Amino acid sequence: MTYLVRVFVSLKPSILDPQGRTVERALDHLGHTNVTGVRVGKLVEMTLSGEREAVEAQARELATTVLSNPVMEDARVEITEIAPASPVEAGA
Amino acid sequence: MTYLVRVFVSLKPSILDPQGRTVERALDHLGHTNVTGVRVGKLVEMTLSGEREAVEAQARELATTVLSNPVMEDARVEITEIAPASPVEAGA
Repeated sequence: MTYLVRVFVSLKPSILDPQGRTVERALDHLGHTNVTGVRVGKLVEMTLSGEREAVEAQARELATTVLSNPVMEDARVEITEIAPASPVEAGA
Repeated sequence: MTYLVRVFVSLKPSILDPQGRTVERALDHLGHTNVTGVRVGKLVEMTLSGEREAVEAQARELATTVLSNPVMEDARVEITEIAPASPVEAGA
């Protein structure tokens, strides 16, 4: 079976985010003064094949060891079953 | 009212993603040979205050004009109502 795995990586709330601060200031200068707390993170999408349980364990392992730095970042994993010949795979 | 807005920015499927290719190759070398179609995108989280309809329109506008390049990227917006003094705001 094939699964679409989405990993959302964001800086932990206690870590300063200079990129987010810069975006926030830019938005403020553009007149969007009601925007606060901008944080910029990463989104990694990938296709994994295998048994559901193995894929879930592998995705969690990848998210916390390879795709994020657990000291500074939080990672959230979302797994969706997809048909074997999905557009995501075809576009790879 | 205060809303948590999450903007997910990913490259359009037809656009080559060298960063994703590099991650994919690295994962392959680490033994994760069942991983394909890796795409790396951005995740922007921010807090917007205002009326729900105005915030929705503003979030959509920001997502497609400031936070992403509509020629090369797709942007998806997710809006969640939060309490006025949320950890997200406090951490800004």
